[in-house]
Amino acid sequence: MPSRLLADVQRGDFRALARAISYAENGVEDYSAQLAGLPPTTTPVVGITGPPGVGKSTLVDALIDHYVKEQKRVAVLCVDPSSTLYYGALLGDRIRMSDWYNHPAVFIRSLATRGSLGGLHPRIIEITDVVRQAPFDQILVETVGVGQNEIEIAGLADTTLVVLAPEAGDDIQSMKAGLLEVADIFVVNKSDRPDADLFIRNLRSMQTAAFRKEGRDIPVVKTVAWQKQGIEDLVRYIDADREKPSAVEKRYRILAEQAYLLIQQQRMKGVDRKSLAATIEELSKDGSFNLYRFVKDFPI
Amino acid sequence: MPSRLLADVQRGDFRALARAISYAENGVEDYSAQLAGLPPTTTPVVGITGPPGVGKSTLVDALIDHYVKEQKRVAVLCVDPSSTLYYGALLGDRIRMSDWYNHPAVFIRSLATRGSLGGLHPRIIEITDVVRQAPFDQILVETVGVGQNEIEIAGLADTTLVVLAPEAGDDIQSMKAGLLEVADIFVVNKSDRPDADLFIRNLRSMQTAAFRKEGRDIPVVKTVAWQKQGIEDLVRYIDADREKPSAVEKRYRILAEQAYLLIQQQRMKGVDRKSLAATIEELSKDGSFNLYRFVKDFPI
Repeated sequence: MPSRLLADVQRGDFRALARAISYAENGVEDYSAQLAGLPPTTTPVVGITGPPGVGKSTLVDALIDHYVKEQKRVAVLCVDPSSTLYYGALLGDRIRMSDWYNHPAVFIRSLATRGSLGGLHPRIIEITDVVRQAPFDQILVETVGVGQNEIEIAGLADTTLVVLAPEAGDDIQSMKAGLLEVADIFVVNKSDRPDADLFIRNLRSMQTAAFRKEGRDIPVVKTVAWQKQGIEDLVRYIDADREKPSAVEKRYRILAEQAYLLIQQQRMKGVDRKSLAATIEELSKDGSFNLYRFVKDFPI
Repeated sequence: MPSRLLADVQRGDFRALARAISYAENGVEDYSAQLAGLPPTTTPVVGITGPPGVGKSTLVDALIDHYVKEQKRVAVLCVDPSSTLYYGALLGDRIRMSDWYNHPAVFIRSLATRGSLGGLHPRIIEITDVVRQAPFDQILVETVGVGQNEIEIAGLADTTLVVLAPEAGDDIQSMKAGLLEVADIFVVNKSDRPDADLFIRNLRSMQTAAFRKEGRDIPVVKTVAWQKQGIEDLVRYIDADREKPSAVEKRYRILAEQAYLLIQQQRMKGVDRKSLAATIEELSKDGSFNLYRFVKDFPI
């Protein structure tokens, strides 16, 4: 980005930030070179993930409310699957947050996941670091729990909240293994439901079974997001997560994950599935195509 | 693998095949060079995926039964998440298939997904092609629907079955977008439940909404796997899927996906997250670490 745009972002100009994000999102700008020259900032990133329907957006809304009342500046990135299937559901979610769209301390931006098979936006690491250049106290990244993105969030966020809602007890059993493994904090939203305590007991006993060896003990926080109940508690746990002795080591692990993905992007530049398919079709015509020979001879 | 082992695999020796798979699974052998020299075989691969609890293993059991009665030879690869969380559930599943373990026409092998965050086994492409060297009429790959592997299966299988079971109608809504997009055939198992017809209606209307533009029409097959109901129907749909005019183009797309993943593996050889984390920790000590500079300067 032009250095003036960067200066505007750093000053807290939302329109400049929106433009900078769009450039990265649409592949117009590769910020790697520029970000290589900038001092890294450490604005904390909280990831919010979990299955559809548990109230993630309502929880984000309540968190924004909390931070704004504390005079803090908040950026929210919502990672939406680009699948046509979900437009309706998402629209409903997003409307809940719309109160904040014009608030001077709140920046909200939706990013479509490219590639319909889930996963975060390919430029999400860069985009988050561009947002970090702006003077926010807190960055929230919400992912819709479909496809793979709820797992990848752990490679981006300093603290990952896995949001659940009390349902039939056996629902926990079918919860994706990855989802359980990425949680730093479990948020049981809609905890005013009569079956909430049973649900929490099941969650705890499952955790005990899964993480006994590692000695991990993941806090469980009860919220009723639409009534803003439990939010102060949750924020206290988020802050405590950052103060843990293991937080430094975790930071290295996250940076290693990001480095891995960026190196992979760099090394796979210019290789795309579509042109591979065309080449393979061409080579297959006389029946001589062999996958392993093709890969071995593929130019580096 | 030694050429004698390969000859034994090609002759249909199950113990040789098991050994060949183990070598690849544990990273002892890289079969790429060897497979580059062999003529590709075209034994059809059917992928079976879907959420936990819908009866995938019972369905696989019924399919094996069907093929064996037709005098066919079947190989089954079960891709299991290695997470400790799922051992109990899986054991129960696998027991259902145990009748076949000693059948001379049936080869069954479980593969753990390495890397706890889901995804198929990193060597699954090679392993499947090694199995293809053996004289099977049909290869089935079953994935447990957790993490990412139910989506990756579409990059491996000629025909992907997404297995569902009738539950509350709104369950479809929370179905992962990716899962819907990879289906060649929907199997509604447990279709003797009273709410099966409503479920199928919902599934169809969701499909219509999602794929209207593309004009895709994915068949829905009803089964009651534990009673072996609907299996002949299903096999007919599987065969028809292979005869579709679009099957050739799809084959190129699958090969392109496999080529992409193999090229990626090749280019990322020697880069691992653990040693990246150690390097990053070292570089961070004097505060000079910058992610983007690190990636830019990373040796190719």
